[in-house]
Amino acid sequence: MATFKNLDELNAFKELSSLKKVVVKDALAGENGAKRVEKYSVKMSGDLVYNFASKAVDDTVLSTLQKLADEAELTEKYAELYNGAIINTGEKRRVLHQLTRGQLGNDVVIDGVNKREFYVSQQKKIADFANKVHNGEIVNEKGEKFTTAVQIGIGGSDLGPRAMYLSLENWAKKNGFFKMEARFISNVDPDDATGVLNGIDVEHSIFILVSKSGTTLETLTNESFVKDALKKAGLDASKHLIAVTSETSPLAKSSDYLAAFFMDDFIGGRYSSTSSVGGAVLSLAFGPEIFARFLNGAAEEDKLSKNKDIFKNPAMLDALIGVYERNVLDMGTTAVLPYSQALSRFPAHLQQLDMESNGKSVNRDGESISYKTGPVIFGEPGTNGQHSFYQLLHQGTDIIPLQFIGFKNNQTENDVVIENSTSQQKLSANVVAQIMAFACGKDDENRNKYFEGNRPSSVIVGDRLTPEALGAILAHFENKVMFQGFIWNLNSFDQE
Amino acid sequence: MATFKNLDELNAFKELSSLKKVVVKDALAGENGAKRVEKYSVKMSGDLVYNFASKAVDDTVLSTLQKLADEAELTEKYAELYNGAIINTGEKRRVLHQLTRGQLGNDVVIDGVNKREFYVSQQKKIADFANKVHNGEIVNEKGEKFTTAVQIGIGGSDLGPRAMYLSLENWAKKNGFFKMEARFISNVDPDDATGVLNGIDVEHSIFILVSKSGTTLETLTNESFVKDALKKAGLDASKHLIAVTSETSPLAKSSDYLAAFFMDDFIGGRYSSTSSVGGAVLSLAFGPEIFARFLNGAAEEDKLSKNKDIFKNPAMLDALIGVYERNVLDMGTTAVLPYSQALSRFPAHLQQLDMESNGKSVNRDGESISYKTGPVIFGEPGTNGQHSFYQLLHQGTDIIPLQFIGFKNNQTENDVVIENSTSQQKLSANVVAQIMAFACGKDDENRNKYFEGNRPSSVIVGDRLTPEALGAILAHFENKVMFQGFIWNLNSFDQE
Repeated sequence: MATFKNLDELNAFKELSSLKKVVVKDALAGENGAKRVEKYSVKMSGDLVYNFASKAVDDTVLSTLQKLADEAELTEKYAELYNGAIINTGEKRRVLHQLTRGQLGNDVVIDGVNKREFYVSQQKKIADFANKVHNGEIVNEKGEKFTTAVQIGIGGSDLGPRAMYLSLENWAKKNGFFKMEARFISNVDPDDATGVLNGIDVEHSIFILVSKSGTTLETLTNESFVKDALKKAGLDASKHLIAVTSETSPLAKSSDYLAAFFMDDFIGGRYSSTSSVGGAVLSLAFGPEIFARFLNGAAEEDKLSKNKDIFKNPAMLDALIGVYERNVLDMGTTAVLPYSQALSRFPAHLQQLDMESNGKSVNRDGESISYKTGPVIFGEPGTNGQHSFYQLLHQGTDIIPLQFIGFKNNQTENDVVIENSTSQQKLSANVVAQIMAFACGKDDENRNKYFEGNRPSSVIVGDRLTPEALGAILAHFENKVMFQGFIWNLNSFDQE
Repeated sequence: MATFKNLDELNAFKELSSLKKVVVKDALAGENGAKRVEKYSVKMSGDLVYNFASKAVDDTVLSTLQKLADEAELTEKYAELYNGAIINTGEKRRVLHQLTRGQLGNDVVIDGVNKREFYVSQQKKIADFANKVHNGEIVNEKGEKFTTAVQIGIGGSDLGPRAMYLSLENWAKKNGFFKMEARFISNVDPDDATGVLNGIDVEHSIFILVSKSGTTLETLTNESFVKDALKKAGLDASKHLIAVTSETSPLAKSSDYLAAFFMDDFIGGRYSSTSSVGGAVLSLAFGPEIFARFLNGAAEEDKLSKNKDIFKNPAMLDALIGVYERNVLDMGTTAVLPYSQALSRFPAHLQQLDMESNGKSVNRDGESISYKTGPVIFGEPGTNGQHSFYQLLHQGTDIIPLQFIGFKNNQTENDVVIENSTSQQKLSANVVAQIMAFACGKDDENRNKYFEGNRPSSVIVGDRLTPEALGAILAHFENKVMFQGFIWNLNSFDQE
């Protein structure tokens, strides 16, 4: 059994605080810069790479971070988690979202049910349902095919699945995998449901009600809204609604739904994109094979998270550097900057994932802690962010660590050459130029144009945003947040 | 002439730092709470109210903030601005966005041109054009009406107009003012343009190219994308494109455009929603009368910003409290939380407005300063945010000041009763409950559910989000940022 200690009880943390600070600008200067970019790079799964050459670390800091990882028993705690220990100390629950996408350790059997098999069985049920919708076996009252899937859910039932849908929409259209439009109703503000319903063809829509308990008031209110709209259109609501819920919820066996797919208490809302919560809408939108490829990408990344060596475990390294920035360098905010329009809502998902998991002032035993925990997370896609809040990132009075994400190729493969380069080349050039400007600054006699530099950043680079890459990036951040929770000794998985 | 001094040279600031800190929880306790809510409330224009009862201020702090406003000559600086002084010290330009919506002081005449009249003339030109599009005088090559307006622009040419469009879309549909769909292409990522073009009927679309200089690379790249698409569809691009630009730009008199509407150097991108930049797309989408009502709302708020008394100048008071939180209470981030789905992208606009204006480490003369300036701004609409990052806001280790916005009625007037209340009532109840929970905390034996409270917030409350209310709220924040820039002695209006 791993030992759970507060961060300030760990020797490696005390050591970390005493180390000489790294000046990013100097570390990247001259010939060393190129070597550093090559060396401070960790392979993720597939063709993804996590590069941290522009972070304020050096070999000494890194070896101390390795000590911290070892002393905090991070991979041991991860193993306990996926082997079914009660890691969610608040509600005394297991934490099994990684099992939705792979078998990482022992079988986890609860009340005679093998949980991995349970999650796979739900994926199969969803796949079967989605295939029948796509091939016209399941149709509306008029015998016509459904064209639109509308997710009704809030928080984790909304932000993750919505971000994932937007991430793959154009890719699926380009590659012949696009089956149905997806829309999302989340806010209890009635104008949200009204706006979505005004914009769709209700008669050809399937509505996916997502509520684990079956009692989330916002979601039930929006369901009632949708049922009203269906009734007014002369339609039978029970022919248009499906439920994603727990087996024990009132929705599970209700005749109000065409079908019900299950999750359980061991999947937190913000970790549910790879469960039935993401599975139903994504399988309907893109087909079950694409959802399976997304899960495979996440599973590969989960495996990397087992490595003890920080140079072979990008999520753990990212987590450790984040803690160093938060607790030693005293930086309170992190910006997530994906240079891909497809990831436009990915930062909003990470905002929930990270801030809801680790925005806490008590440890996993409910005791007050005296160090800083989870940072504020915000972000918008580049290059849009560049024309918006980058001024503060470059020249503001606080230093904000940056997390870039970029791809060598765009999803649709459509492009245009202007001034001797394609848009995609411009986008990639922008990522590199921004990382260098943040790190090294820019001299200018005009003090308004002068950047000091020394703004730390990392970048995840891949060839193209495919389902596998998306799954891998999602799992990277989920596992980063998990490792940070372990380091801060928090219960990152409470569902209160 | 007002005197420009750094914040730390002002006596009132030194005084402010020495005052006893207010404990929000105590200030709101018992009978005093209700009195405080009534007293700490400032009328905005129309039926809007700015309430700051849950801010960490008392009469002593407020009277010192009044002294700070007086000593920093905030309203005098504002008067210099709208009377045409060179407030943008970086590029030695005037700052005249308020004149797009009203005459606040003297005529500002430059090279024989009365700028207020110039802005009005552009509004009229746009109104005339939009009316002709709506009534079928201006049509596509086949003589058919245009149905969609697509804005091509980035930064201020995108975020503000997009946020305003989304803010009024459902309202306009409900009230019979909806004329055309609007879409936005901004990112240099070619998948952005591809995605938008895939989703529209190109043959019936007008594209609005927005670039002040006519040289913004992202925007010209996306224009080229659009021209390609038009050509491929066998259409004449010059019959589908209009330009919003400066009179001196290469776009101004090009035969590539059906029409050109002008702005000038005195309108910064992030302050351009009330200029032709917002005017073209909003007049096309909702009709010129609605755009005029939006301007009127902003103009009324601009007038309030002239008042020296902080209790009659909500934007100035909001600015002062923000500076107190940033520079005395040492809070580095502000969350903007509109309880209205229509304002879903308003926080993204404020992010640019605030962070690009005041995220600076040098003063208006280019000298380094030693105090904190603009905070990080982020936010999502409630109740979505509640199910996402509120955990950190309630229980995180940093205190994040909060800016709520709420309305008594929703825009579409569609609603549904569940458990004895409408969705709108639930939404309003959530705002009040959240403000109280943030301020007063929540006792719970379970330390995971315990909230300490003392998290300061303010709220802007209105009857309904109309064009006037939207204009007023926009101007409130623009003027807040302006006043904060004056207090920090920054050039908030640089366009670099």
